[in-house]
Amino acid sequence: MTITAITTADRRFDLRAGAGSDAIHQNIQYAYAVCHLHTGGTTTGTGLAFTLGAGNDLVCQAINALSAPLLGKPIEDLMADFGTVYRSITDQPAYRWLGPHKGVVHLALAAITNACFDLWAKSRQVPLWKLLLDLSPEQLLATLDLSYLEDELTHADALTLLTNQLSTRPDRSEVLKTGYRGYDTSVGWFNYSDEQVVENTRRAISNGFSAMKLKVGSKDPARDIRRAGLIRATAGDAATLMLDANQQWNVPQARQICAQLTDVNPYWIEEPTHPDDVLGHQQLARAVAPFKIATGEHIPNKVIFKNFLQAQAMDFCQVDAVRVGGVAEFLAVSLLAKKFDVPVVPHVGDMGQLHQHLVLFNHIALGHEALFLEHIPHLRSHFRHPAEIVGGYYQTPQHEGSSCDLID
Amino acid sequence: MTITAITTADRRFDLRAGAGSDAIHQNIQYAYAVCHLHTGGTTTGTGLAFTLGAGNDLVCQAINALSAPLLGKPIEDLMADFGTVYRSITDQPAYRWLGPHKGVVHLALAAITNACFDLWAKSRQVPLWKLLLDLSPEQLLATLDLSYLEDELTHADALTLLTNQLSTRPDRSEVLKTGYRGYDTSVGWFNYSDEQVVENTRRAISNGFSAMKLKVGSKDPARDIRRAGLIRATAGDAATLMLDANQQWNVPQARQICAQLTDVNPYWIEEPTHPDDVLGHQQLARAVAPFKIATGEHIPNKVIFKNFLQAQAMDFCQVDAVRVGGVAEFLAVSLLAKKFDVPVVPHVGDMGQLHQHLVLFNHIALGHEALFLEHIPHLRSHFRHPAEIVGGYYQTPQHEGSSCDLID
Repeated sequence: MTITAITTADRRFDLRAGAGSDAIHQNIQYAYAVCHLHTGGTTTGTGLAFTLGAGNDLVCQAINALSAPLLGKPIEDLMADFGTVYRSITDQPAYRWLGPHKGVVHLALAAITNACFDLWAKSRQVPLWKLLLDLSPEQLLATLDLSYLEDELTHADALTLLTNQLSTRPDRSEVLKTGYRGYDTSVGWFNYSDEQVVENTRRAISNGFSAMKLKVGSKDPARDIRRAGLIRATAGDAATLMLDANQQWNVPQARQICAQLTDVNPYWIEEPTHPDDVLGHQQLARAVAPFKIATGEHIPNKVIFKNFLQAQAMDFCQVDAVRVGGVAEFLAVSLLAKKFDVPVVPHVGDMGQLHQHLVLFNHIALGHEALFLEHIPHLRSHFRHPAEIVGGYYQTPQHEGSSCDLID
Repeated sequence: MTITAITTADRRFDLRAGAGSDAIHQNIQYAYAVCHLHTGGTTTGTGLAFTLGAGNDLVCQAINALSAPLLGKPIEDLMADFGTVYRSITDQPAYRWLGPHKGVVHLALAAITNACFDLWAKSRQVPLWKLLLDLSPEQLLATLDLSYLEDELTHADALTLLTNQLSTRPDRSEVLKTGYRGYDTSVGWFNYSDEQVVENTRRAISNGFSAMKLKVGSKDPARDIRRAGLIRATAGDAATLMLDANQQWNVPQARQICAQLTDVNPYWIEEPTHPDDVLGHQQLARAVAPFKIATGEHIPNKVIFKNFLQAQAMDFCQVDAVRVGGVAEFLAVSLLAKKFDVPVVPHVGDMGQLHQHLVLFNHIALGHEALFLEHIPHLRSHFRHPAEIVGGYYQTPQHEGSSCDLID
């Protein structure tokens, strides 16, 4: 199956009032810069990068420019050594200078990479999770670019890590039947009223969720504490409550406010400060322990994830395959996180469509704990195969590919 | 003087064979994404962001999108509180999501910010260095956005730092007469032959330079060592020789190769590995001491500079005002570097045009040592007021503005 044409689509979706809002981002759209790999037949590879609307066109243009070398290539040839292909795309010198490995050009790489993996799975007529699990450790590693990680994770280290998990895979494959637990992010968007938060909490619980998230970072921390208390009172002490500040605080503010927020016993505090601030997060993680720090949706690449892990600056790794350089970089970061024994709990710019495959692989093949996967329902109606959540659990997808096709 | 229209220009320049080449970037162009702020009269503000050609159009498009809020505003009003203006431009939520504070959108911010400072200086009919020196510490700080630096540099800290230097400014103002020492980067581009490197070294010395740079990162380190030896033999033991690897090595390679390269007594080793790798640079800096590490041209923002400085991972801070978010972020990083007692030796994507102003300010107003400023002559003929280098020294510019106007 050969790539005969490459097109992009700039898809933007308005959300209902308040949905998606946080302390930094108000009145937003969700948007995908979409890469389509055409094959001359009915099979098309689809890859997403996630943005908030304006500027999504820049990512589409970068996809067009960066993906040109893939034209005319059979997908099996590309994926047999995708690590090299990936690096050659991302290191085209002039475009590299626009990063390197971050921003618009790296988001474009995400869409291209994800389209390649999607097409590969479709061409083999299997869901992505099965494609990945069926690869040998060597074949899997050939799809990854581990450059600049060698001080912590060599190719040999990664091979050992994957190989050592092979014998215990059957124990962990039960998850394919039970499904993968979800958590509900849409309980407590920033602009929702208190009443709405309580109502959403009730609905989440009746839908089978026992873990949920509240957006914090109000000018007055008392608002955050009150709303967290409402969720706690509604959901009970056993419920898992995550708080998300979306980078609202500087480091001294974060230290001070997090100390207050620990009263509501949060499972984690997410994005407490600027996502580039490795040492700020390190300082915070030490200051708020035993409360834990989660971050990752704005960490653009494996090198910065390496620094966060080395510095013990993140307790949960929220790498997102539609925000870093696609599935290949997601897996590289997941390998690295496994080495550091840090759980991967992806941010889902893809609304969980792609990540439902990746967390199955991470659990079964890498031995990552099957914690839970973020669930955001707002774009359900736009996907051809929307994720199926039953009783709070993602059901294992059985269709071909990576579940990222949008309805036209 | 009010901004009545905003236009962009995508200017790309082919270089002569070999010029500009390094271990990562071959056959390159130099390019500027230019922001023009029109005023209805003959005065136009010009701001540059530097790229390597392809993709420069994306930066121009982002300039158009991000600069719209400036339309109709008097330049004096904008600059009286430019820190707030700056933050409102960079934190437009959807565009913020494409960074934050890095990549294409941040390069666009650089061009916009630099155009504002240029227009401000032209409107007051003074060179930029004089405009900056004539501001009170409070006025200067009002142009900066110090958010996310508060754990290391509060507004009060910065005010104290600036105020403490006021009484000794006259001692340092001599530099306005003597000129600011330059160093020659164009001696040893990666693809130049050995003969060319020797010839360039001779010419640099006869032109008054005593400091020069060699591009390293060859597949065979023996090539780098041989070429460094040629420069050393030609220029003499007293000459200052800098080595620049342009991110070619991973951390273990850098440790090993830098140990060999120290035989030629380099003044610094520049960009030894991936520019995002704060902790990798920290490890290297410790391993190669007393040899020193320089980096900065690919560090996109003040937060990452803060981490590098906190980690003692850079000995020379090569912040570049056409690569970070413009003059305002350059000055914020320079304040931070001063606090950590790390010299600022800018990378000059602007070919030194803008930075000749900024290093004068850094020396006189911040008390930074007047070390030297990179000199690259390849685009001289394209600037309306090309930097004047006499006997290896940048002559203090006397024309209005920031010296960034290009000839059409």
